[in-house]
Amino acid sequence: MEIKVVRNILEANEVIASQSRKLFAEKGIYALNLMGSPGAGKTTLLEKTIEYLKDKNHIAVIEGDVATSRDAERIAQHGIPALQINTGGACHLDGNMVHGVLDEFDLDRVDLLIVENVGNLVCPAEFNIGENDKVMILSVTEGDDKPKKYPLMFQVSTVLLLNKIDLLPYVDFDMERFQSDALKVNPKLKIMTLSCTTGEGFDDWLNWIEDRKQIARVK
Amino acid sequence: MEIKVVRNILEANEVIASQSRKLFAEKGIYALNLMGSPGAGKTTLLEKTIEYLKDKNHIAVIEGDVATSRDAERIAQHGIPALQINTGGACHLDGNMVHGVLDEFDLDRVDLLIVENVGNLVCPAEFNIGENDKVMILSVTEGDDKPKKYPLMFQVSTVLLLNKIDLLPYVDFDMERFQSDALKVNPKLKIMTLSCTTGEGFDDWLNWIEDRKQIARVK
Repeated sequence: MEIKVVRNILEANEVIASQSRKLFAEKGIYALNLMGSPGAGKTTLLEKTIEYLKDKNHIAVIEGDVATSRDAERIAQHGIPALQINTGGACHLDGNMVHGVLDEFDLDRVDLLIVENVGNLVCPAEFNIGENDKVMILSVTEGDDKPKKYPLMFQVSTVLLLNKIDLLPYVDFDMERFQSDALKVNPKLKIMTLSCTTGEGFDDWLNWIEDRKQIARVK
Repeated sequence: MEIKVVRNILEANEVIASQSRKLFAEKGIYALNLMGSPGAGKTTLLEKTIEYLKDKNHIAVIEGDVATSRDAERIAQHGIPALQINTGGACHLDGNMVHGVLDEFDLDRVDLLIVENVGNLVCPAEFNIGENDKVMILSVTEGDDKPKKYPLMFQVSTVLLLNKIDLLPYVDFDMERFQSDALKVNPKLKIMTLSCTTGEGFDDWLNWIEDRKQIARVK
């Protein structure tokens, strides 16, 4: 009974997500769905990414949070159109929530849309929102045992950003075990290590976005 | 429509959670529901707590995870009866999942039951499992902006354990802002700061458990 409810929700979600996907393709928009636990560094990554890319890209951001508009306010300070969705209790964004706010943007003037999902390593992985790529971010402070414990997030993501590597000297984190486990769960996963604090590894991430944007346009 | 489904699930959950609550009272068991993000330090806290309390208490542990039995294996190494629930995708434990495994323990020989919920700062807060107290654990590496962004978890918890304070020198965390925001969300919240690595602040936590056990018994 409960499973049936979930399946119906997921099917309904897929219908509306595909409408967003079509719209993004028509408008030449490359859309990223950024996911990770609370405090993994999603908003800080986004702020830094915007600073590097905003001169060459028309960026727009959708922020998903259970409550508050703090993240959208942080993004708007960078001169970027930003919109906050408050889920009011729901632990993820779904296709409907995202599709419902798209007409708040001038989509003809957007070529890179980044959606920051609700901080959660479980539920957001289940819901497509029409994105081109799902990107997960995980902090080394969260521990090296996460791939096998939260496999779906690793399975659905194209990229894993392993963040806060400047804290590696102070935490117990086995990089080899982590990478091996992550690739067992998803052999195609592209793993990048970086620090939003020091900037280490950030170039790889920026280059990856540019590459994927090109690929999405050729499709 | 969707809201109605959620309400029905929550009502059904309350019925079964109250059955567990009654059983715990009959058996003189004090039950804790430990919640927090992935990597906040739940299992490490539990291991350390067990080491300190196991001589004077009959402890049992239920571990909730989406996948794997790693955490229950970690706990069992301390000579404690431990049981793993794999939710298989669900982002929280509910009353039914917990109630369904209780007869796996010899409850006459348990006086402290600790349930470690699925790593998630959102959904577990919605579901009672018959516990006496909800305890949330948050790591300073997760950031000081969490109380207002994830208010329900702070509202339903009796205690907030602020963990990994040994990492405070390396992260940007405004303790005053954090505590003030947390108390705005829940004025009754008891905040304890500790480090499972150095042991700092651990005595307060152990004393609190002993006090609450006594209070639960008097009731």
